[in-house]
Amino acid sequence: MEKDIIYVIGHKSPDTDTLCSAIAYAGLLKKKKINAVPAVYGDLNPETQYALDLFKVKDFQKVKTVKNKTVILVDHNEASQSPEGIEEAKVIGIVDHHKINFSSSDPIEIDVKPYGSTATIIAEKMMTEQFKINKQMAGILLSAILSDTIIFKSTTTTKTDIKIAKELAKIAGVDNIKTFGIELKKKKASLSGLSAKKVIYSDFKIFELADKKFGIGQVEIVDPKEGKEKKAELIAELNKINEEEGLTFTALMLTDIMKEGSEVLIAGDKSYIEKAFKTKIESDSLYFPGMMSRKKDLVPKIMEIA
Amino acid sequence: MEKDIIYVIGHKSPDTDTLCSAIAYAGLLKKKKINAVPAVYGDLNPETQYALDLFKVKDFQKVKTVKNKTVILVDHNEASQSPEGIEEAKVIGIVDHHKINFSSSDPIEIDVKPYGSTATIIAEKMMTEQFKINKQMAGILLSAILSDTIIFKSTTTTKTDIKIAKELAKIAGVDNIKTFGIELKKKKASLSGLSAKKVIYSDFKIFELADKKFGIGQVEIVDPKEGKEKKAELIAELNKINEEEGLTFTALMLTDIMKEGSEVLIAGDKSYIEKAFKTKIESDSLYFPGMMSRKKDLVPKIMEIA
Repeated sequence: MEKDIIYVIGHKSPDTDTLCSAIAYAGLLKKKKINAVPAVYGDLNPETQYALDLFKVKDFQKVKTVKNKTVILVDHNEASQSPEGIEEAKVIGIVDHHKINFSSSDPIEIDVKPYGSTATIIAEKMMTEQFKINKQMAGILLSAILSDTIIFKSTTTTKTDIKIAKELAKIAGVDNIKTFGIELKKKKASLSGLSAKKVIYSDFKIFELADKKFGIGQVEIVDPKEGKEKKAELIAELNKINEEEGLTFTALMLTDIMKEGSEVLIAGDKSYIEKAFKTKIESDSLYFPGMMSRKKDLVPKIMEIA
Repeated sequence: MEKDIIYVIGHKSPDTDTLCSAIAYAGLLKKKKINAVPAVYGDLNPETQYALDLFKVKDFQKVKTVKNKTVILVDHNEASQSPEGIEEAKVIGIVDHHKINFSSSDPIEIDVKPYGSTATIIAEKMMTEQFKINKQMAGILLSAILSDTIIFKSTTTTKTDIKIAKELAKIAGVDNIKTFGIELKKKKASLSGLSAKKVIYSDFKIFELADKKFGIGQVEIVDPKEGKEKKAELIAELNKINEEEGLTFTALMLTDIMKEGSEVLIAGDKSYIEKAFKTKIESDSLYFPGMMSRKKDLVPKIMEIA
């Protein structure tokens, strides 16, 4: 086991909330004289890169494994979503806003709140503990909240997310939160120039339910045309992934952040989603109005029926 | 589902930390205009009754089931330790200081810290949030900390437990924490006049590991003679429980709070404890110097080898 360093790290296929939460939480711990290092596993998406560049934040480590490391998990808790090597890591803490599916042999520190983003939990903690949030930190935390709540449009958004985001915007010098949010989202919400595989894996999670596993990706689009053009290619790739990974089914949510709904493309056993929504999927996809959040609008419904 | 009321409730075989934490946390929630009711499942032990009487606290509900209730679990999280009906309850929160073994289909609020008592987590939260702790509340929270940390002698004790206990003692008007702690512990630490069954079930927990279940009780004694006199009777009862409950093994820690060690009596398959401590148990019991905490000194060692 590597000594003395605590790696604060989020899920694989990192998004803005995962990395910015890791950076902010490590910052809070360092203030408490704890030797914490923010880390990331996997490539950054263009949205995250944009937020980091804009607020001039670059102090984090890219790691290839968490094997033999002491880690605090942020923005996830299920081992199937953790970086490579998690089985041989020592998990000493969790800060997250997802459903929990975790067990440990010792008591560890766990802070889970049903907020729209992990960044909200961390920013609220900083404010309660009167930790001084600087402009850079406020900027990336705000970006993380706007990213994960899809500019407050996601059904996961709480009053606390909005309240904290407003306070962060003041510190970060962001005058119009919505305009900034759309600017940020546009960086990620483009499928053009990306392979189907890259699109799916840009935010892809595996869920476990008894002995079944299923994979659900989510991408945001601002222009429905983009989805239409790439659909056949995406479905072919979903089928390939479903077979290669040995999953029960593999789905991709094409979430239209303007129209506020998702087209769900699906490969493998369609019956789970059909049962969950009491519907029939004739072809390989179906549009669900109002579906914005994977973890709130899709995953729990599948868990309930399965 | 019963509407609008949130029951704050601890584990079965309630101890001082379980009930006092439920009462304090419900108090904190009520201040936030949440309709929370502190509840308890099972009979109070003499120590808990003493603390409640001393600080004139009596507002809590005894419940026979949590079926169809909305609950916040305190001082435990594993369903096997929850009150009857937990499978049909809606769990919306957890405040605990034990190892976690919990899964939910939705995100819920979870606050787990590796402190010596759940009361420490709640008292710290109250202080951080500048909630005014009155004398009664301080008294029962202090009692809970002293009870669960065995007057700071348990290996689970942290600096935070001691710091918070000192602040609570000031508010509660307790001048000598140690003297008060011994007074409190003596109420519980007596086997005389109790049946073997009552002794074992006074603080008994079932643990699950893959498809195995084992039960471990713990009682504190101040006089080693007491344990010796009751030993044969206790072992006979452990064997009976082990068979009736279909457990892999059933153990009882006789924790001598003066000598600071535990005699572990055991029925059923002894090999788990033997492997965990690389020892051989010739008869039905073995003394382990320094073993004070079930959850820190015994359970994790069994989990590791099994």
